[in-house]
Amino acid sequence: MQDIIKELLQPNGSKIILCVLDGLGGLPLNGKTELEAASTPNLDELARRSACGLHVPVAPGITPGSGPSHLGLFGYDPLKYEIGRGVLEALGLGLELSRNDLAIRGNFATIRYEGNRPIVVDRRAGRIPTEENKRITKEIRKKVKTIDQVEVSITSGMEHRFVLVLTFPEPLLVGSHDISDTDPQREGLSPLRPLARRKEADRVVSVVDSLIDKINHVIKDEAAANYILLRGFSVYPKLPTFSEAYGLKAAAVAVYPMYRGVARLVGLKDLDVKDSTINSEIETLRQHFDEFDFFYFHVKKTDSYGEDGNFDGKVKVIEDFDCCIPDIISLKPDVFVVTGDHSTPAIMKSHSWHPVPFLLYSSKNRGVHVSGFSERECLKGELGIFRAIEAMPLILSNAGRLQKFGA
Amino acid sequence: MQDIIKELLQPNGSKIILCVLDGLGGLPLNGKTELEAASTPNLDELARRSACGLHVPVAPGITPGSGPSHLGLFGYDPLKYEIGRGVLEALGLGLELSRNDLAIRGNFATIRYEGNRPIVVDRRAGRIPTEENKRITKEIRKKVKTIDQVEVSITSGMEHRFVLVLTFPEPLLVGSHDISDTDPQREGLSPLRPLARRKEADRVVSVVDSLIDKINHVIKDEAAANYILLRGFSVYPKLPTFSEAYGLKAAAVAVYPMYRGVARLVGLKDLDVKDSTINSEIETLRQHFDEFDFFYFHVKKTDSYGEDGNFDGKVKVIEDFDCCIPDIISLKPDVFVVTGDHSTPAIMKSHSWHPVPFLLYSSKNRGVHVSGFSERECLKGELGIFRAIEAMPLILSNAGRLQKFGA
Repeated sequence: MQDIIKELLQPNGSKIILCVLDGLGGLPLNGKTELEAASTPNLDELARRSACGLHVPVAPGITPGSGPSHLGLFGYDPLKYEIGRGVLEALGLGLELSRNDLAIRGNFATIRYEGNRPIVVDRRAGRIPTEENKRITKEIRKKVKTIDQVEVSITSGMEHRFVLVLTFPEPLLVGSHDISDTDPQREGLSPLRPLARRKEADRVVSVVDSLIDKINHVIKDEAAANYILLRGFSVYPKLPTFSEAYGLKAAAVAVYPMYRGVARLVGLKDLDVKDSTINSEIETLRQHFDEFDFFYFHVKKTDSYGEDGNFDGKVKVIEDFDCCIPDIISLKPDVFVVTGDHSTPAIMKSHSWHPVPFLLYSSKNRGVHVSGFSERECLKGELGIFRAIEAMPLILSNAGRLQKFGA
Repeated sequence: MQDIIKELLQPNGSKIILCVLDGLGGLPLNGKTELEAASTPNLDELARRSACGLHVPVAPGITPGSGPSHLGLFGYDPLKYEIGRGVLEALGLGLELSRNDLAIRGNFATIRYEGNRPIVVDRRAGRIPTEENKRITKEIRKKVKTIDQVEVSITSGMEHRFVLVLTFPEPLLVGSHDISDTDPQREGLSPLRPLARRKEADRVVSVVDSLIDKINHVIKDEAAANYILLRGFSVYPKLPTFSEAYGLKAAAVAVYPMYRGVARLVGLKDLDVKDSTINSEIETLRQHFDEFDFFYFHVKKTDSYGEDGNFDGKVKVIEDFDCCIPDIISLKPDVFVVTGDHSTPAIMKSHSWHPVPFLLYSSKNRGVHVSGFSERECLKGELGIFRAIEAMPLILSNAGRLQKFGA
């Protein structure tokens, strides 16, 4: 579909804001979802003047991670474009990646030897404190710098987690990341050697092989974190940018590294935000409103509270966002969308597959009556239930940026 | 999907009428869409006894031209089958085409020479009167008859427009129309030479090259129309007929050449209609009702008034059509559908992407209550929002013409 969209683009001066409240969709507790329990006079009023519906992030019944769900909303088929775990983790730590980079998720683990045979005793090295992790990665950084012209960079995550980025002197081949994990997934087994599942991965595997041995040698005398387990070998996915795909000069207002990273993946300029409050994000939006055609505006905490099972916390974030609606409207966007990337019902304490409320405000709506902004009201809206990848064409049309298809 | 449908076909004596009110879907003016503003007691009564819904002509957010939107309703994926601009224009002028024909849209233009270099001064030759156009094409017809065994046929359109049909002695190769336009799209530039974008187009390009020079020579002394600009090189698309795809003996009741042409493309017999009134179309339908299984019944003016921004005019055509409903019902069709090919909201003065109301009357409905026939009421109907290409399977099933899929 992006091929067709590209043919139909007609630039105009219209402004688009896509607000993504992470994990917005919910399930009822005592009869009301988080969105229904929240007092949202501004969103309700907006919904009454908007085209409403629900989007299915990837496919019915599929619970998406943040990567696929954002790709979908941005109009990239998440079943076609995959963001590998290593890349996602690297983006989450705020790392910049290029087409020459291979990203890998790693765990520090504890092993003991049975004869010459290493056996995993603890896949997470007793969840060592993050400070310990930092000390050890610093040590590794000092001693393992390059392997066969490939630059090695290790970055600490929380507890036992880290990310390795291997920077090759040349762009990586397609398929070069198709490598099996070394984590055996169960204690009592030996770590696995990385295996190339495609010929194109041979070069990478030989580098990774040496790397594992070198790092394990550096940390062999650590009490807990005396071995590394690797998985999620992945390369920077080659995505058309928003400029290429939609002719949009686009920016991201987001605070969390992973979302800034996903936004950069599709060519959005990640704007600086003073602190992690919604008000500061609004301030950034206002400051840069003249410079861009399209703004992705991300609110994280709806999802965080959902994951924590904190129903009231999620309600409160929705209410805080509601208070900012007049500020956003005062910028006079031509198209203003409020939705989530997926559902994170507090009662499930996790992402879920449930369709996500979607509100599209523009001058081209039929005006089908809904009484407010919620999962159940959106079901009555004129957009019905649709796939997330259909959102961008709808947004572009409402912004007057698409010509007619065929004569 | 057409492959599966074909396997499941079971002929029976059922009769189907598909009424397409061109550009039927609308947007509210003073709170009501055209369909809501129209007094349509018959359609409302019918809707209450029908399965209602809204169809998306091509894909969400995509505004279709008449070609793709008709293909979709007829069950042919408009993203797979493309009707080129030249072919559509030729069909619009009532020309018959075959697999040996290449159709091209042309403009008469005004050029002047800077040295040997032709510069386009007016891409539309000052929009010469249609009568002038006719005089000039007659002259060309006299002097340019064949080029390298290819028959040349030129037909006047309105003002500066014409269509060229090149009839080759052999069926054209796939890809033979993949030729770049000669219209530079801006005044002050030189006309372009036609270029083959694929090897298969080489033969056609050499013919077109000579043709351009010959025609330009004939008209070189005209005051305004002294040059031709060509675009939309296209060949007759190879579509399965209604008989092949659906086992239906099918006919078209349509007045405008383009719609008769699109109908012929899918093997519909285009019946003669005395004049362009809806009553005459009904008369044709009645006369031939025994001869065919399926009737495509087209009403053009809803779209024309929509394009003109004439809200009341569009309302009036809908009301005129409503008056004919009892006549159609009296023929006792087994399946009777009323819908549009796309939306043409008068307030937008153009086609749009909005879903189109759809009413399917048969004896196999659930009877979900809607209070009348309109965009907003259809949203409550049992068919929901669906893609236009799904209409034909629904129609065939309701007509008892599809067997069970699988055991």
